[in-house]
Amino acid sequence: MSKKGNTLRDIGERGLIRWFQDLITPYDKALLSGLEDAVAVPFNEEALVVNSDMLVESTDVLPGMTASEIAWKAGVMGLSDLAAKGATPLGVIISLGLPAETEANFAAALVGGLNCVCREHETYYLGGDTNQCLELVIDCTAIGRVPQNQLMRRKGAKPGDLIATTGEFGYTGALFEALLRGNSEPAELVDQIREKALRPRARIKEGKALAETGVISSSIDSSDGLAWALHEIAAASRVGFQLDSLPIPQMCAEFAVANDLDAVDFVLYGGEEFELVVTLPPRYWKKASKSVQQVGGSLTRIGKIVEEPEKSLRFGREERTVEIKGYEHFKKS
Amino acid sequence: MSKKGNTLRDIGERGLIRWFQDLITPYDKALLSGLEDAVAVPFNEEALVVNSDMLVESTDVLPGMTASEIAWKAGVMGLSDLAAKGATPLGVIISLGLPAETEANFAAALVGGLNCVCREHETYYLGGDTNQCLELVIDCTAIGRVPQNQLMRRKGAKPGDLIATTGEFGYTGALFEALLRGNSEPAELVDQIREKALRPRARIKEGKALAETGVISSSIDSSDGLAWALHEIAAASRVGFQLDSLPIPQMCAEFAVANDLDAVDFVLYGGEEFELVVTLPPRYWKKASKSVQQVGGSLTRIGKIVEEPEKSLRFGREERTVEIKGYEHFKKS
Repeated sequence: MSKKGNTLRDIGERGLIRWFQDLITPYDKALLSGLEDAVAVPFNEEALVVNSDMLVESTDVLPGMTASEIAWKAGVMGLSDLAAKGATPLGVIISLGLPAETEANFAAALVGGLNCVCREHETYYLGGDTNQCLELVIDCTAIGRVPQNQLMRRKGAKPGDLIATTGEFGYTGALFEALLRGNSEPAELVDQIREKALRPRARIKEGKALAETGVISSSIDSSDGLAWALHEIAAASRVGFQLDSLPIPQMCAEFAVANDLDAVDFVLYGGEEFELVVTLPPRYWKKASKSVQQVGGSLTRIGKIVEEPEKSLRFGREERTVEIKGYEHFKKS
Repeated sequence: MSKKGNTLRDIGERGLIRWFQDLITPYDKALLSGLEDAVAVPFNEEALVVNSDMLVESTDVLPGMTASEIAWKAGVMGLSDLAAKGATPLGVIISLGLPAETEANFAAALVGGLNCVCREHETYYLGGDTNQCLELVIDCTAIGRVPQNQLMRRKGAKPGDLIATTGEFGYTGALFEALLRGNSEPAELVDQIREKALRPRARIKEGKALAETGVISSSIDSSDGLAWALHEIAAASRVGFQLDSLPIPQMCAEFAVANDLDAVDFVLYGGEEFELVVTLPPRYWKKASKSVQQVGGSLTRIGKIVEEPEKSLRFGREERTVEIKGYEHFKKS
């Protein structure tokens, strides 16, 4: 495919990623395919799992976010993909690009916040690089380890498998509505939603617990939204899915009602939530669920894997198609 | 120290890095101090060595550099710090920030170039992240391994130790003069200097060979210039140094003569060269030198470590002070 005269805006992030794949020499010992969100290479009997995620001010920072909220998001983005593979972090390396006119106090809050998000996930901000840049850029590289036979992948879901998540969805989508579209009532509810949306957790403990059970057939994090995560698992495993319940928090449902909005949109397409979405054979439900409870989390069933090509959500008699929608860089909006 | 009202421009990169150190929880198992250019953590009997270096268009790209030259520089920056620790790369993770109006062909040349610089250093471009950004940003994270007892550090040089480098210096300084200050004659010589300056090698094989000898008392790469590297070793080891020869390439000496410039400036303060600067007891000179020759490189003696506080260069009867100068982000120029 010739790209002559085209710009990245014409191609879009996901087209670009596929195109870039062809330009990179594959490593024959790699333990994850190039389409996964993290890379993994053998290190003795273990897998070294590494994920870099770059946060850029002009595309990733919502209006009004504080330095510590930005730092939190950047750190969780990096760590969450390790969680989806079942890896335990060894540490995080962070490169910062900062405008020269950045206030020192802002930079300190940012660095302190990055330290905090690492410590809250029981890992360390090991070091990195600091640079002058036209806008704020935070590139977090999280490095982790997992026994090779426990490494979880996107591919492997089978018809009949249950679909489960490690938590609820909708906070980010609701906050986005509130901040960008001006549906900011009731104020107290929006404040609660904001706190949840801007302080997500990477599900490190849950990921490790699930990996150790050995019963997970596929796993992904939901940083591009629940719908996107489900479509990625379906594409990688060549299956479809049927959802029969929506993991929506009470406060998002209330916000939707108060503003006459469709909560299904928040849950499916919000993005930037960091729950794990996993599949497993039904006979292992108790084992998996218990393993997550033992580390203080919870696993919620939301549907099942079916033969292609169905990708739907059913409530009672209502049925909707779950669209392939999620945030994408470069595309004209 | 209160930073209230100050911006990063007032503090400068190096002041900022010291300040940030205080905001980050130290990891008690870390194998390198926070002032090193790379981080290292234990992984069974080995050290996992990781270095991130961010290249930013507005501060790191010289006028007229092609996509593949930019890619080469970004990759070598990341790999060179691994070389200085004696680590063998396991792979490189690269996050890209690209403006939406970037031409697809430029992006392809960049990605192809990043793949190339990895392959030329016998490692792999494992993956990474792609983002929209106001300017070009390339953050390369190189990951390597080395037995813990072979890990080389900045600290440890002793009075009487020899100082040696894995190659010559001056190409970048000369090119900078040619491109930015308009001393671009003789043209053929400038072309040769350009080729050398823009295609440096990370001294991976040399670093590994030196680490294996077990005789190196301190090691650093010279990405901020030879003078800076020497001062860093001196500060970390609480010693001084006396240089008695200058590792200057013939073509840089000729360029200096043709333009009535001082070649010593090119050699000491050019920066963005990636030779290793190491120290070792004189009795191990042959062993170290031979180990580097066996992997196709060469080791050149340039001086010796002395008691503090001398930091000088002597040619015959002439003596100069080697200043603490190197490129620094954020500072007003």
